[in-house]
Amino acid sequence: MARIVMKFGGTSVADLERIRNVAGRIKAEVDRGNQVAVVISAMAGVTNQLADYADQSAELYDLREYDVVVSSGEQVTAGILAIVLQDLGVSARSWLGWQIPIRTNDAHGNARIEDIDVTEILRRFDDGQVAVVTGFQGIDAQGRVTTLGRGGSDISAVALAAALDAERCDIHTDVDGVYTSDPRIVAKAHKLDRVTYEEMLEMASQGAKVLQTRSVEIAMKHRVRVRVLSSFENSSGTLIVDEDEIVEQAIVSGITYSRDEAKITLTRVPDRPGAAAGIFGPLAEAAINVDMIVQNVSVDSDETGITFTVTKADLERAVKVLEGLRDSLEYGDLLSDPNVVKVSVIGVGMRSHVGVAQKMFSTLAEKGINIQVISTSEIKVSVLVAEEYTELAVRSLHSAYGLDAA
Amino acid sequence: MARIVMKFGGTSVADLERIRNVAGRIKAEVDRGNQVAVVISAMAGVTNQLADYADQSAELYDLREYDVVVSSGEQVTAGILAIVLQDLGVSARSWLGWQIPIRTNDAHGNARIEDIDVTEILRRFDDGQVAVVTGFQGIDAQGRVTTLGRGGSDISAVALAAALDAERCDIHTDVDGVYTSDPRIVAKAHKLDRVTYEEMLEMASQGAKVLQTRSVEIAMKHRVRVRVLSSFENSSGTLIVDEDEIVEQAIVSGITYSRDEAKITLTRVPDRPGAAAGIFGPLAEAAINVDMIVQNVSVDSDETGITFTVTKADLERAVKVLEGLRDSLEYGDLLSDPNVVKVSVIGVGMRSHVGVAQKMFSTLAEKGINIQVISTSEIKVSVLVAEEYTELAVRSLHSAYGLDAA
Repeated sequence: MARIVMKFGGTSVADLERIRNVAGRIKAEVDRGNQVAVVISAMAGVTNQLADYADQSAELYDLREYDVVVSSGEQVTAGILAIVLQDLGVSARSWLGWQIPIRTNDAHGNARIEDIDVTEILRRFDDGQVAVVTGFQGIDAQGRVTTLGRGGSDISAVALAAALDAERCDIHTDVDGVYTSDPRIVAKAHKLDRVTYEEMLEMASQGAKVLQTRSVEIAMKHRVRVRVLSSFENSSGTLIVDEDEIVEQAIVSGITYSRDEAKITLTRVPDRPGAAAGIFGPLAEAAINVDMIVQNVSVDSDETGITFTVTKADLERAVKVLEGLRDSLEYGDLLSDPNVVKVSVIGVGMRSHVGVAQKMFSTLAEKGINIQVISTSEIKVSVLVAEEYTELAVRSLHSAYGLDAA
Repeated sequence: MARIVMKFGGTSVADLERIRNVAGRIKAEVDRGNQVAVVISAMAGVTNQLADYADQSAELYDLREYDVVVSSGEQVTAGILAIVLQDLGVSARSWLGWQIPIRTNDAHGNARIEDIDVTEILRRFDDGQVAVVTGFQGIDAQGRVTTLGRGGSDISAVALAAALDAERCDIHTDVDGVYTSDPRIVAKAHKLDRVTYEEMLEMASQGAKVLQTRSVEIAMKHRVRVRVLSSFENSSGTLIVDEDEIVEQAIVSGITYSRDEAKITLTRVPDRPGAAAGIFGPLAEAAINVDMIVQNVSVDSDETGITFTVTKADLERAVKVLEGLRDSLEYGDLLSDPNVVKVSVIGVGMRSHVGVAQKMFSTLAEKGINIQVISTSEIKVSVLVAEEYTELAVRSLHSAYGLDAA
């Protein structure tokens, strides 16, 4: 007997037929004698439609009301799934976020889970009852509905698995696992049987869409064994585990890319203390996330150039903020370019191997791809290149690091 | 300054454009200095669609889960309306049934409101905030979501008006008031400026769809001044009030009809004590409501015939129940007929006037319409006739009682 959490995304519950399929998978786990909590998303497209209502209602809106609107989608699927499970003879009940409760802070639209009270769910496990929990939502200290941001159901699932001390958290989605790269552009990409928390975290933050980044952080912190698998096929998926559970570790596990980048360059910035703070402070105040940063070293001048990246969505606002600072910052030109892509090479094996970055640079150079910005971490090297090279860069690196499937 | 409850039905909030119209009406009341609580339905068609999901999920289903599913529709409109009101500069927040809370019994799918805690809403009235409340739903003692049955938002509105001790409860709908008969079949029907609680109650229970029956009961009990009016036009609508507020009382105020009737006749029922109980007891146990009942008097025989009506939806089940009782009841034939209509003449003036029923019978006789069953109350006479005579019967009676508009 095991205690498991099963999460099903929007495409897995897009219609009644698929909800029946999901119910069959849950029943199979129950029949194996397992205790099961299910975390469920809204039907595919529903959350977007609800968010559109809010967007069309007003230019700026109260995020507390937005949360009331968009959280209704999971309510529908949770109730329907409970009905279908009961129809299959499986004892089940739906749990809305506020009923459990899943307590969050009050950052509406992007709230963080603070605590999940699993007392009653555990009690009902003893009676063989399946808990069908609405993903993506919780309740704040004022008793108002909160949502966890896009992909928030992954967070709900992993946090619930941690609270339940579950043996496994199965994330059912429309792909059958985590791949060495995006199979839509790298035909030779292959599925990984296992990947470490650290690698998965980098992959998620560097553009792989299979798991929400925060959910991987929580899994890593609480050592939740997460499995990513298809809700439509029978396969073992990809297990996300501790490094010591992986016997033969490849140096590089994956190549990711993110098109959601835009580059900003400020030329002739006076090279004096506080110059960087004068730029990035106001951007942070405007809630604009800055990712990669390079500052040109000025050897024979008292001016420098600063280049950095923001998300494409934030570009316009960032430019506006910086234009307002032209007089105080005394920079020369403000250049911006949305046609860039960030390509990353990720692998825990890098820690113990040298030359990984060098191979990346030489591979791109051989293809005539100019590197605009570089940033590195212990297990990752990212470069910014022109967007038109995306496919070429990713495929070349996939081959160069020996990841192509036989 | 007045304290009012404004209820808007599904057609009034069918899309964003209409929700903006609704918000404008609310703002007008706020600008008049009034304290406003709004009760809102799901967008037209949404509740039906959600109920369909449940129906298609399983033949029999847990009504607690049904309630979770169908209650989501009002959640969406409440959040959107709060956003639109704020956009107009009106302070507003949404309240879900469980947040207030609106406490009900646990008769899921058809729950009764037991108590509404209005403390916080009243406190926020003092700050000028509008309360946007989800209609149709509440929470039971176990903390599970309940719904109040079809038309339940009318009940929510009137019960909230009673709890708030509101001066008025305005029910905004797609018609501009209560008519002497259904304008779709009686072109000469006219709007009533005022109608008594008793008449409205009979009209609602005898087929007029403008207000939910239970909501009228609650209004009558708590003496809530209810006004029915259009959300699309500016008109004073119809005020539902105490009898003594109506100076010139017509003898008959309205002619209603209900096609949702089916007739069952049992012939040659042994005329002995307990025969009726033997029939109606098992029907009640099967939750089948029986409306009109006639028992033929047996003069020269120890057998009798019993005829009664049920709703069309219950006919098949009722027949099944009675067929199972054939041996114990020892009746002769079981006849059923779904092609019947109940036509009713309603008016508090009947109490002090004789000949009202006689005029009904003679009017129908003149048109060659055969009366199958008769039932009466203090302020109503109902007859069951063949469905094909619906329009003819209603129009003839409307003329006969002098209700035709000039």
